[in-house]
Amino acid sequence: MSDAVTDLHASVESFFASTFSTDNAVITEAVKRMLAAGGKRLRPRVTLLAVDASGGNALGHLHLAAYMELIHVATLIHDDVVDNASTRRGVNATAVDYGNRVSVLTGDYLFAWIFKNVTANYPHPVPHVLSATLADICDGEVLQLQARGDLDLTLGAYVEIARRKTASLFAASAECGAIMGGTGPREIEGLRAFGDAFGVAFQMKDDLFDIVADERSLGKPVGNDLTERKVTIPLIEALASGSGTFRDEVRRFYGGTTNEGIPAIVTGIERQGGLAATRAHIARFVERARMALEPIPPGPAKEELAKLAGALLDE
Amino acid sequence: MSDAVTDLHASVESFFASTFSTDNAVITEAVKRMLAAGGKRLRPRVTLLAVDASGGNALGHLHLAAYMELIHVATLIHDDVVDNASTRRGVNATAVDYGNRVSVLTGDYLFAWIFKNVTANYPHPVPHVLSATLADICDGEVLQLQARGDLDLTLGAYVEIARRKTASLFAASAECGAIMGGTGPREIEGLRAFGDAFGVAFQMKDDLFDIVADERSLGKPVGNDLTERKVTIPLIEALASGSGTFRDEVRRFYGGTTNEGIPAIVTGIERQGGLAATRAHIARFVERARMALEPIPPGPAKEELAKLAGALLDE
Repeated sequence: MSDAVTDLHASVESFFASTFSTDNAVITEAVKRMLAAGGKRLRPRVTLLAVDASGGNALGHLHLAAYMELIHVATLIHDDVVDNASTRRGVNATAVDYGNRVSVLTGDYLFAWIFKNVTANYPHPVPHVLSATLADICDGEVLQLQARGDLDLTLGAYVEIARRKTASLFAASAECGAIMGGTGPREIEGLRAFGDAFGVAFQMKDDLFDIVADERSLGKPVGNDLTERKVTIPLIEALASGSGTFRDEVRRFYGGTTNEGIPAIVTGIERQGGLAATRAHIARFVERARMALEPIPPGPAKEELAKLAGALLDE
Repeated sequence: MSDAVTDLHASVESFFASTFSTDNAVITEAVKRMLAAGGKRLRPRVTLLAVDASGGNALGHLHLAAYMELIHVATLIHDDVVDNASTRRGVNATAVDYGNRVSVLTGDYLFAWIFKNVTANYPHPVPHVLSATLADICDGEVLQLQARGDLDLTLGAYVEIARRKTASLFAASAECGAIMGGTGPREIEGLRAFGDAFGVAFQMKDDLFDIVADERSLGKPVGNDLTERKVTIPLIEALASGSGTFRDEVRRFYGGTTNEGIPAIVTGIERQGGLAATRAHIARFVERARMALEPIPPGPAKEELAKLAGALLDE
């Protein structure tokens, strides 16, 4: 199966490299450039493994799997505008190379192009699942914007934001793969729940890495979330530890605009146990993801999905 | 019928004022604010009249009609980011009040919310027509960006851009109304062709007004297209008149960044016959729109559609 999985991954890459094209040359080029910069293609992998785990032929659903990555790419392109990011995945952001105008239009076009293809070629409820997911992603991002700088953000509210902005697309990737694989409602629900828990763990790890990783392996600046005054789980847990001195320091940093304080905040988060607590939450959601696979018949696809979740525990 | 049409319009307004709401309060507020600023609601009118002209019950399709206006509103919200516009319909642009981040997300959410509802409640091919239309709109906007400052832009290329960025949504508004009204393929095609020709004439009139109207009635700055170095039909026709002196003046203006030259360019466009030629093209597309209604059985809805097109000849 490891070979088969490698093949699936290679097939997705080859689809992007050779088959993918839209009717607009500028947009195709901008998207191909984002795709060529790499990425783990986790969303299409989840889709293809869900097809396989549901008794379907994974290679027959490469396009559907590719759309999951392209929805992700379109949101990244719009994030570039939203966040004024200057690098993304280690290459220049679309917004920097082409300007905000083209970024907004490229993302819009990509969403429309995906929906145009999905509504033409996939049965109900696949188009509905994808559009509801996009609504969730945007809703989650707006909630995150509103929560910026809110040091009283609860763990529950953080998880709800992560669920919408990140996990919903993993849940949809698994659910649509399961639907097209032709399995029953209990298995579809199980695979969707897997994607949901996996996605929350994935976001938590992303937030952890923003603090512990080095810039080269991250492909973006370290402490970027702090720069943007986002409140993520390592900070929420560090604040929950109860040190008034640390909270005052964080409050001063979040109330200001300079970023020299970042190394001290990072050290503080670690000392207050924020990293350890985050790792524990990741482990909990990874376990939840594995448990969600219970209704899925044993086999290599199920094992690979469990492995994908387990890999979130590595650092 | 005039009463009935007024009622349809009032019903759309009342839908926006009381029924319309999304799951995200910030987004609902931003959208309602755009809606409250007015607008002629031409797209929903075309949808409701097409339902009526196709033997359906117009009031049963208010939601569908509203989605046409909301797609338009979402593209305006994204245009605010794209064009750095500071006013839109006479009120502050979403981007100015809420920032680029919220504008991008609000437009994305609105697109997703519309597709979520349409895929849940409307039969094939309605969701497909709407997503293909959104792809056309973005494609047209990218083509327009690429054509900026291109003084050799042909009339044919201009019409193709107008067809995609503007007419496609009128064509979809008419087509989806006809589909839901339950008429035959020839009538659906006729109504779609009406929307297409109407939309091109509408865009030409918009471009004409950008040059001849005063700021108060336009709700945005006069000569805005010139400021942005767009090449629109009055200029294309004025350049086609063959005056080398005028072309040189235009070339200097388009090559520069200052806007003091705008009144002189406007006068030049008029002197070179650009306005008269534009009016003739508008009349041609209005006539084409009326001719497209030929397969539609006579009746008040057909008459109202013809009147809507005819109104584009008024100034």
